[in-house]
Amino acid sequence: MVIELDVTAPIAPDLPVVERRARIPAGFLAGGRAAGIKASGRPDLALVTVPGGASPAAAAAVFTPNAFAAAPVRRSRASLRATGGWARAVVSTSGSANAATGPAGDADQARVGELVAGALGIGADDVLHLSTGIIGTRLPLDRVAAGLDALVPALAATDDGLEAVAVALRTTDSVTKVATVSVALPDDRGELHDVRVSGTAKGVGMIHPRMATMLSVILTDAAASPELLAGILRPAAARTWNQLSVDGDTSTNDTVFVLASGASPAAPVVADSPAAAALAGAVEAVARDLARQQAADGEGATCLLSCQVTGAADAADARAVARAVISSSLVKAAAHGKDPNWGRIAGAAGNARLADAAVLEAAGLAADEAAARGGGPARLDPNRLRIAIAGHLVYDGEGGGPQTFDRAAARAAMDAPEIVIRLDLGLGDGAGEAFGCDLTEAYVRENSEYTT
Amino acid sequence: MVIELDVTAPIAPDLPVVERRARIPAGFLAGGRAAGIKASGRPDLALVTVPGGASPAAAAAVFTPNAFAAAPVRRSRASLRATGGWARAVVSTSGSANAATGPAGDADQARVGELVAGALGIGADDVLHLSTGIIGTRLPLDRVAAGLDALVPALAATDDGLEAVAVALRTTDSVTKVATVSVALPDDRGELHDVRVSGTAKGVGMIHPRMATMLSVILTDAAASPELLAGILRPAAARTWNQLSVDGDTSTNDTVFVLASGASPAAPVVADSPAAAALAGAVEAVARDLARQQAADGEGATCLLSCQVTGAADAADARAVARAVISSSLVKAAAHGKDPNWGRIAGAAGNARLADAAVLEAAGLAADEAAARGGGPARLDPNRLRIAIAGHLVYDGEGGGPQTFDRAAARAAMDAPEIVIRLDLGLGDGAGEAFGCDLTEAYVRENSEYTT
Repeated sequence: MVIELDVTAPIAPDLPVVERRARIPAGFLAGGRAAGIKASGRPDLALVTVPGGASPAAAAAVFTPNAFAAAPVRRSRASLRATGGWARAVVSTSGSANAATGPAGDADQARVGELVAGALGIGADDVLHLSTGIIGTRLPLDRVAAGLDALVPALAATDDGLEAVAVALRTTDSVTKVATVSVALPDDRGELHDVRVSGTAKGVGMIHPRMATMLSVILTDAAASPELLAGILRPAAARTWNQLSVDGDTSTNDTVFVLASGASPAAPVVADSPAAAALAGAVEAVARDLARQQAADGEGATCLLSCQVTGAADAADARAVARAVISSSLVKAAAHGKDPNWGRIAGAAGNARLADAAVLEAAGLAADEAAARGGGPARLDPNRLRIAIAGHLVYDGEGGGPQTFDRAAARAAMDAPEIVIRLDLGLGDGAGEAFGCDLTEAYVRENSEYTT
Repeated sequence: MVIELDVTAPIAPDLPVVERRARIPAGFLAGGRAAGIKASGRPDLALVTVPGGASPAAAAAVFTPNAFAAAPVRRSRASLRATGGWARAVVSTSGSANAATGPAGDADQARVGELVAGALGIGADDVLHLSTGIIGTRLPLDRVAAGLDALVPALAATDDGLEAVAVALRTTDSVTKVATVSVALPDDRGELHDVRVSGTAKGVGMIHPRMATMLSVILTDAAASPELLAGILRPAAARTWNQLSVDGDTSTNDTVFVLASGASPAAPVVADSPAAAALAGAVEAVARDLARQQAADGEGATCLLSCQVTGAADAADARAVARAVISSSLVKAAAHGKDPNWGRIAGAAGNARLADAAVLEAAGLAADEAAARGGGPARLDPNRLRIAIAGHLVYDGEGGGPQTFDRAAARAAMDAPEIVIRLDLGLGDGAGEAFGCDLTEAYVRENSEYTT
């Protein structure tokens, strides 16, 4: 029987259309190159900056809540505290995470900041830091220094420059991840101007809710305060990157930066305005699309696994159930085998728990969703739940439970680049979604054969 | 450098020695057979009972907190409520979980209870229920009825009878799991009598903390009240089965029963007595050994992965960190590759969170461990942490972090039936351990190729 649930209804808020290419917003220079940090010789050093003489960009961030937060995370937190939320540069190194490297690692990262500041003629606290790669290895500072010397003169206010950043962020990613949205924002006279929001992200392993993002940088030429940007980023990340799992591991280095140059002729965006809503929609659309690209490119993955939940008592419950389903090893293995094994989905949903308030807070995400019930179980009634896999209704709690369905047709429908699992909880109007991938032998091979 | 941490120091309390064979305690009859529930034709029906005319056995249980708790779980809860903690029989079916089967599944399970009660001449509420297998399939009642007709006359007060129960519990288990401890308890005149605690368990997939046990039955001929048994079982399960993870999935059917026949000549065990401590030690030793057998036989596993944590601020933190490490897909994959990739261990430990109080309570486990801090992060200071893998110190927070170690020797030491990861948090004297297994391509194959 084909589903009664409307699998075409959008779960995400009404978000603008995303273009999957890098389109650098006004007011930024960008570039990347190979500096020899990675043994492979691939690009591993990236830099984004505002032009000399320009005002700093407003900045907002969310970070991993891992107790082993890496040196770049600690350094970036300190910089943002020192400047009150402004930045002139983002530097990224790939190949070494500079995590669990002790005081020496902190000193290394501070030195990276000084090198960038010296090369650009800015202050060390104007620099934000990203790093990704093997945990426990030191940054090769001499190579970073030489790389910066070569990279700084080559920075460009071009789409290619931003694409080069995306390339240099990668570690085990098989594809580059970029997403751009344009929104029309008014200037002081009401005239509309295209404002860009363009982001890039890396990360295909050690990815799990609790700010599961690995690294992302989102740039916009909108003019906005750090507070407004933070107010946009946190709920957007909670609905997108915090709903992304590849393997259940939360990294030491997860970081998202949003930087607003203010170079657009559009008027500064103020809170609670239509322009703020438009900018928030653009940021969330970019974040959501990047999260989906990350899930689809999960280590060893052959398909994107989405779970869309409607009818929850509230959005927090919906997101918790969606996370639980796409995080289940058994559901992921069944997705790989194109097996409409809905019992595993029911079992996973039955274990859904709200995110922990303390952990969300540590990540800089909105803590409201869990605060009320302190990380407890999501509300779920097996007698009201309905489950559909790839458009096939497989379980209907009000209709006696297990449904007779065309197993061969369901298997065929699961043989697609994206498998959508849809749950309606029948309890309210809360909705949410989560993004994962199938679990494959290639994931095991990739992560057992090499130190990554 | 070989470790300074004392990897030989016991983490578990001073537990008695376990014998890995079924030794039926006095006061029970047991048996198992193939009833045709499993398509494979393997044994799938088991029964434990007290002899006709005997008093009921005191019973205690812990159950899955899954919102999709299966019909046998609901039925057992109802029976224990009705009798106040006494039982005359445990019936187990294997091959169908009778989970997510709606009201029809509840009716089926009630009918199983009536069939057992009729065959044994006891009340339906005297029967406790276990079931395991595919979620969403109905029990074949006619086969269960025919199987019971054949099984009841063959029940025996023999070790072979209990061994047959262990065999019939199995699903994807590759080996039968049994464990026995004998303790000397005094009678009224102070004379000592050997009292047996003998348990069996099944479960090698869909196993994860939050009462990760699949199914277990522990029998003893000690005389004890249901309250005393519950007071022994809950902390023992919290330290053993709640520390067991194979794949991160918590089943719909997890159940542990402890039954005490009182057939021993030893005096009834009363709370806070040396006999109670001895019985508690015996139950915990059996539980711990069964949990280790389950982990070692995890789906697709080639080795047991233990994490032992000392120096935590308290035992709850220690157990949370141990759980986080052995649950990490990346740590498990590295264990498979014999890769001393301690960065993944640090990353996993840094994400450790206390078990949620509400979930523990739903499972019937002690809720004390999380109540104080409501599921928040475990306390961890990277600058005080030390990590050893298979006897090799790889990270020492007070000694600058990453340690130089003999990677080839560490790899060789990891090529063993059990890999021990040792963490000392350097914060207090809390200790705990957890049990898992490596993540292999065989796990993925097993769970993507078949509906299980």
